[in-house]
Amino acid sequence: MSVTPIPPLDRKQAAHAVLAAKQRLSVRWEALAKAVGRSVEWTTSALLGQQTLTPEQAGAVGSVLDLDQAVVEALTLPPVRGAEAVDTTDPLVYRLTEVVQVYGATISELVREEFGDGIVSAIDFELDLERVPDPKGDRVKITLNGKFLPYRAW
Amino acid sequence: MSVTPIPPLDRKQAAHAVLAAKQRLSVRWEALAKAVGRSVEWTTSALLGQQTLTPEQAGAVGSVLDLDQAVVEALTLPPVRGAEAVDTTDPLVYRLTEVVQVYGATISELVREEFGDGIVSAIDFELDLERVPDPKGDRVKITLNGKFLPYRAW
Amino acid sequence: MSVTPIPPLDRKQAAHAVLAAKQRLSVRWEALAKAVGRSVEWTTSALLGQQTLTPEQAGAVGSVLDLDQAVVEALTLPPVRGAEAVDTTDPLVYRLTEVVQVYGATISELVREEFGDGIVSAIDFELDLERVPDPKGDRVKITLNGKFLPYRAW
Amino acid sequence: MSVTPIPPLDRKQAAHAVLAAKQRLSVRWEALAKAVGRSVEWTTSALLGQQTLTPEQAGAVGSVLDLDQAVVEALTLPPVRGAEAVDTTDPLVYRLTEVVQVYGATISELVREEFGDGIVSAIDFELDLERVPDPKGDRVKITLNGKFLPYRAW
Amino acid sequence: MSVTPIPPLDRKQAAHAVLAAKQRLSVRWEALAKAVGRSVEWTTSALLGQQTLTPEQAGAVGSVLDLDQAVVEALTLPPVRGAEAVDTTDPLVYRLTEVVQVYGATISELVREEFGDGIVSAIDFELDLERVPDPKGDRVKITLNGKFLPYRAW
Amino acid sequence: MSVTPIPPLDRKQAAHAVLAAKQRLSVRWEALAKAVGRSVEWTTSALLGQQTLTPEQAGAVGSVLDLDQAVVEALTLPPVRGAEAVDTTDPLVYRLTEVVQVYGATISELVREEFGDGIVSAIDFELDLERVPDPKGDRVKITLNGKFLPYRAW
Amino acid sequence: MSVTPIPPLDRKQAAHAVLAAKQRLSVRWEALAKAVGRSVEWTTSALLGQQTLTPEQAGAVGSVLDLDQAVVEALTLPPVRGAEAVDTTDPLVYRLTEVVQVYGATISELVREEFGDGIVSAIDFELDLERVPDPKGDRVKITLNGKFLPYRAW
Amino acid sequence: MSVTPIPPLDRKQAAHAVLAAKQRLSVRWEALAKAVGRSVEWTTSALLGQQTLTPEQAGAVGSVLDLDQAVVEALTLPPVRGAEAVDTTDPLVYRLTEVVQVYGATISELVREEFGDGIVSAIDFELDLERVPDPKGDRVKITLNGKFLPYRAW
Amino acid sequence: MSVTPIPPLDRKQAAHAVLAAKQRLSVRWEALAKAVGRSVEWTTSALLGQQTLTPEQAGAVGSVLDLDQAVVEALTLPPVRGAEAVDTTDPLVYRLTEVVQVYGATISELVREEFGDGIVSAIDFELDLERVPDPKGDRVKITLNGKFLPYRAW
Amino acid sequence: MSVTPIPPLDRKQAAHAVLAAKQRLSVRWEALAKAVGRSVEWTTSALLGQQTLTPEQAGAVGSVLDLDQAVVEALTLPPVRGAEAVDTTDPLVYRLTEVVQVYGATISELVREEFGDGIVSAIDFELDLERVPDPKGDRVKITLNGKFLPYRAW
Repeated sequence: MSVTPIPPLDRKQAAHAVLAAKQRLSVRWEALAKAVGRSVEWTTSALLGQQTLTPEQAGAVGSVLDLDQAVVEALTLPPVRGAEAVDTTDPLVYRLTEVVQVYGATISELVREEFGDGIVSAIDFELDLERVPDPKGDRVKITLNGKFLPYRAW
Repeated sequence: MSVTPIPPLDRKQAAHAVLAAKQRLSVRWEALAKAVGRSVEWTTSALLGQQTLTPEQAGAVGSVLDLDQAVVEALTLPPVRGAEAVDTTDPLVYRLTEVVQVYGATISELVREEFGDGIVSAIDFELDLERVPDPKGDRVKITLNGKFLPYRAW
Repeated sequence: MSVTPIPPLDRKQAAHAVLAAKQRLSVRWEALAKAVGRSVEWTTSALLGQQTLTPEQAGAVGSVLDLDQAVVEALTLPPVRGAEAVDTTDPLVYRLTEVVQVYGATISELVREEFGDGIVSAIDFELDLERVPDPKGDRVKITLNGKFLPYRAW
Repeated sequence: MSVTPIPPLDRKQAAHAVLAAKQRLSVRWEALAKAVGRSVEWTTSALLGQQTLTPEQAGAVGSVLDLDQAVVEALTLPPVRGAEAVDTTDPLVYRLTEVVQVYGATISELVREEFGDGIVSAIDFELDLERVPDPKGDRVKITLNGKFLPYRAW
Repeated sequence: MSVTPIPPLDRKQAAHAVLAAKQRLSVRWEALAKAVGRSVEWTTSALLGQQTLTPEQAGAVGSVLDLDQAVVEALTLPPVRGAEAVDTTDPLVYRLTEVVQVYGATISELVREEFGDGIVSAIDFELDLERVPDPKGDRVKITLNGKFLPYRAW
Repeated sequence: MSVTPIPPLDRKQAAHAVLAAKQRLSVRWEALAKAVGRSVEWTTSALLGQQTLTPEQAGAVGSVLDLDQAVVEALTLPPVRGAEAVDTTDPLVYRLTEVVQVYGATISELVREEFGDGIVSAIDFELDLERVPDPKGDRVKITLNGKFLPYRAW
Repeated sequence: MSVTPIPPLDRKQAAHAVLAAKQRLSVRWEALAKAVGRSVEWTTSALLGQQTLTPEQAGAVGSVLDLDQAVVEALTLPPVRGAEAVDTTDPLVYRLTEVVQVYGATISELVREEFGDGIVSAIDFELDLERVPDPKGDRVKITLNGKFLPYRAW
Repeated sequence: MSVTPIPPLDRKQAAHAVLAAKQRLSVRWEALAKAVGRSVEWTTSALLGQQTLTPEQAGAVGSVLDLDQAVVEALTLPPVRGAEAVDTTDPLVYRLTEVVQVYGATISELVREEFGDGIVSAIDFELDLERVPDPKGDRVKITLNGKFLPYRAW
Repeated sequence: MSVTPIPPLDRKQAAHAVLAAKQRLSVRWEALAKAVGRSVEWTTSALLGQQTLTPEQAGAVGSVLDLDQAVVEALTLPPVRGAEAVDTTDPLVYRLTEVVQVYGATISELVREEFGDGIVSAIDFELDLERVPDPKGDRVKITLNGKFLPYRAW
Repeated sequence: MSVTPIPPLDRKQAAHAVLAAKQRLSVRWEALAKAVGRSVEWTTSALLGQQTLTPEQAGAVGSVLDLDQAVVEALTLPPVRGAEAVDTTDPLVYRLTEVVQVYGATISELVREEFGDGIVSAIDFELDLERVPDPKGDRVKITLNGKFLPYRAW
């Protein structure tokens, strides 16, 4: 009985292969972003499996990281953005969750006062991460930039 | 049998009183921040119950909002920052949670590459929220600014 | 010690008062929608607490249902849209949840094929409910109409 | 010791094989629906594993997608409709869940007013998905059409 | 400020009042069923809050149990059938849950073989409970009688 | 290093093998029940893994279904009756769970009135499933028959 | 509007009243058991709300503890045995839960070997608690005594 | 690349091998307890993976059951006592959990009255299981014997 | 109808009264510990509701804090140590939970190597908290001191 | 089709290999700590997968334990500190969790009194574990030493 052709790798395995090659070749995310033609943040999330990559973008990453063709193809599969995409009990990620817990109501209040009833889009959205030098210890500046979407009344 | 003196209001009730007075008097968060002498974001989170206010700061807010003395006193109680501080199923807050879900691994990777093994502090932390005009629809820019804390080895 | 003025009713209590008055006076949702100047579906969700009502809209409902002023004021409070807004174990609501469970992947596939990577907005969204006569038993036609939002790449 | 014959693929693996072949051959769901003789929505949910397919329907899909006989046979296995059929934390699916959360009580109220005590069937049910062109951005119209079932009293 | 008229009792409180009066007056469910004009099982579930009662039925129960008018009115409110309607950790109710756990797959298989793909309705449904004398200890015979509903294909 | 002899199949795998063979050979549960010498319901639950089968019963099933000896032996392993035995989110099984939710309190009340304080056994228990022809659509009659067990006082 | 007579106390409140009176009057459980005519263990669980008490037994307890008539009546209400009857995170109770976790499989194995397929009844059940003097520290001996119930085959 | 030596079996697999050999050779737990030099209850829990076995004890079991050397070695690995050690939804184990639920508060009360503030150790603990013949059906007597540990004050 | 005497305050309310009086009178935990005759840590946990206080100890606290007699009596009620005693999502407490998550396996390994199979008692246990001056920022030194309890074999 | 090079072992597998080799060669954690040049506690947590090891440190451990090169490389992968790093239902680890439950509020109170509003860092943190001889049974002294971090106001 012949075996049905099933894609040999999924997005998660492709991400692991990218991380392994990146470490082996000492390539920085910035170099991969340049190859892809996108920001460092978008490129990282895409290669970790959370964005759609075109075959050209996947191929460019494959060239930089000397990836197998199977990995390059897997990078073009649909993204996987569900709760399994992250372990919220990891200490670094938990701090972000705690920020939402402690400051979520504040953000709601300020958005409502300034924009009215609606939400900040997580789809029409950009992420930016920057190092801020500080004599008391450098800081991480994470910018979340989302379109305000008002509730529709009909 | 005499009754033991129990503080008449807790931080949650104080927050409700602040919101009611603010709406009745049409006061903006900015005016309250000026009275407190802090940023709008910190002041909002403090009045919602998530930061420590000095008697002077509480008194200044009481003057602006014409608050009862019981509310002013309750504003100086210890902050309440646990999970009950926010409803993560509220659509606006959920979008923030989803951002952590979709981009948490990306932030981890970029922090690790740039700073090494550690976390972004949610304690030595500042929040900033800004309106960004955009012809396709104005945007909300939320900046999370936390000190990088490296894991200690001993 | 004087007591701080706290709003006497919240949105949930206002919704209960609306339902009680509506039943007592035998008013249909359609009549309330006409008073509010919106669709039946939006008006119902607004009076149940999930949309923002203007003082004029709240006042119009108050006139039709002979509501107390305290209820009318409570209707203008911010909406409450979190998970407590519905009991998903109620048999009718559970059937909707089951539809998402059984057909959610199908909707994802068809949207992806037709529109590309993105979501169907639950904010820029309209709900419509219609009775469809059928000799084998009348049917309920529920229409969900949301704007497609493509993921932003940057 | 001889090995017991176990079916080589389950419905989930069959769905993966269908998706892979569909992508490789650039076949649209519409073409598969035509081969099956059903609507696009039913056919998609059936091929994703949530409906019963006859051997003839499975064979027709196998011809279009050049599927292995093992996949064709697996497509005729009983459907799998439990909670594992979908990841409700996927952003697109979550928006549908949020619609149930925000509008579930509204649907309950309107059905009760119009039909009386009962539910909207998720079994005697049809799903329809349509693209609605809109200058401000095209929209997705999802129609849920279920038979009203009154509670039986005895 | 005047207070909005709110219904003084909900279905749960009405059920408690019924149980208290029933115990005080030593009335059996059978007598209440006769007054209502329905089976014992339906009447019990209705008076516990899970079915819709007409004003006539509620009034008849009120006469037998000498209920206050407020209770009679509350009995005509919409039923409450969500998960809070029962404590599944109560030993008796848990045994029923365990039956579903141990025999649920068996029922699925037998229904599928006999009827095809579909479900047993919990809406077009009757419950019957009977005592079966047995020398080794009397038995409880619980009959679940639901209409088979085939999945619709379209 | 030699490998420890581990039983090649567990009860779940044995159940899968039974289902596959049953489908391949078009055998009905009734025929298997005749071979086992028990009712259809008990036999189905036993072959799905929830009852203890003697070697003779397992052998009889093996003859009818032409099962491998490894499957026959696995059928005599201890039953597996925990929560993994069923997916309560499957639509058919969920309807049974909902029946417990909606009618559990009713059953409790009626048993208490008729028998006193105790439970309906799920161990000294029989299940019966029957098709009831009905011009409006055939019905499924599921009978749960358990011994009443009074609480012991000491 | 007259108020419907609702029982003034439930079993939980009755238990609190018993504990308060028992402490005030320095009565031991043994004295209450003697008044009730049952074992110490059964009497304690009954007065805590988990067993059915006859009016005579409730009255006897009321005499010893000088309880109000409302408490005596509440003691004859149906018992409440669900999960709310105990806090399993209390350190003492958790140790019992851990015993089930660590030794549950052992008990299963030994019962199966000795009795065959069945369970140990928690209904036809007796509890005994005894102090065992020990020079290294006295011990608590808890005896669970339940009837073996074999699975019925039919 | 050479492969790192990893222990070929863990405690769970060792337990399965013990159970399989025990069944094949018709050895009773009592015989294994004699070989180990401990009680039947301790030996069973140890071979199921919840106690530490010395190489001598593991070897003795290996001789009786003719176990592979890899299994004997695995039996000396650290015990695994977490929640995965048991399925609390198994009907027999659930009855034990229900006993804790129904009688946990009773045990707490009686221990507090007799011993003061403290717990019953689940570590300095012995389990005993005994068959009690009874004309109405034999009973299972499970004895939990733990040292009382008083809370330390400092 | 007379009302049964119910204790006017529970341990949680007593703790609130202690905290309010302590703040009003600017008393430090150390002063309360001196009055009680125990360590600061034990006294704090006792007054927060997690330890047993004698009438003398409660009275001494009452004198220092000028507490009502009802509060003093409530302080002698049994302690409440279940999960409700703390909000583990509070940022400070969460850090302790994270320490258990990150270092729990390490503590297990080191205890096993040094002491053998057993646990660190949380009952025969002392807590100590100390400020450690440090030029880079003062540190908190929390010492957990528990008796090692070996597993008993029998 | 060639296979992409994927790292042969992850941190968890590397930890298992370390534990196996450590047991086989009877090496103590102290010896490994000496090779790594860090404390016993840090080294143990690092080798169990919760800290970052340099290639030199990993190599030194590899030499002592005669580890395969693949294991040595895997030891330099990023640490894994999420909830899967520990089983909190393991009896020893659960005792630590219970300490947080019982004493968490006490620690909060004392830190707040002494340091003000902030947390004890779990990142700038040291763990120390020590055996304390005691005639009544040796004790385990676990020291948690974390930097106090004050909340930032801005």
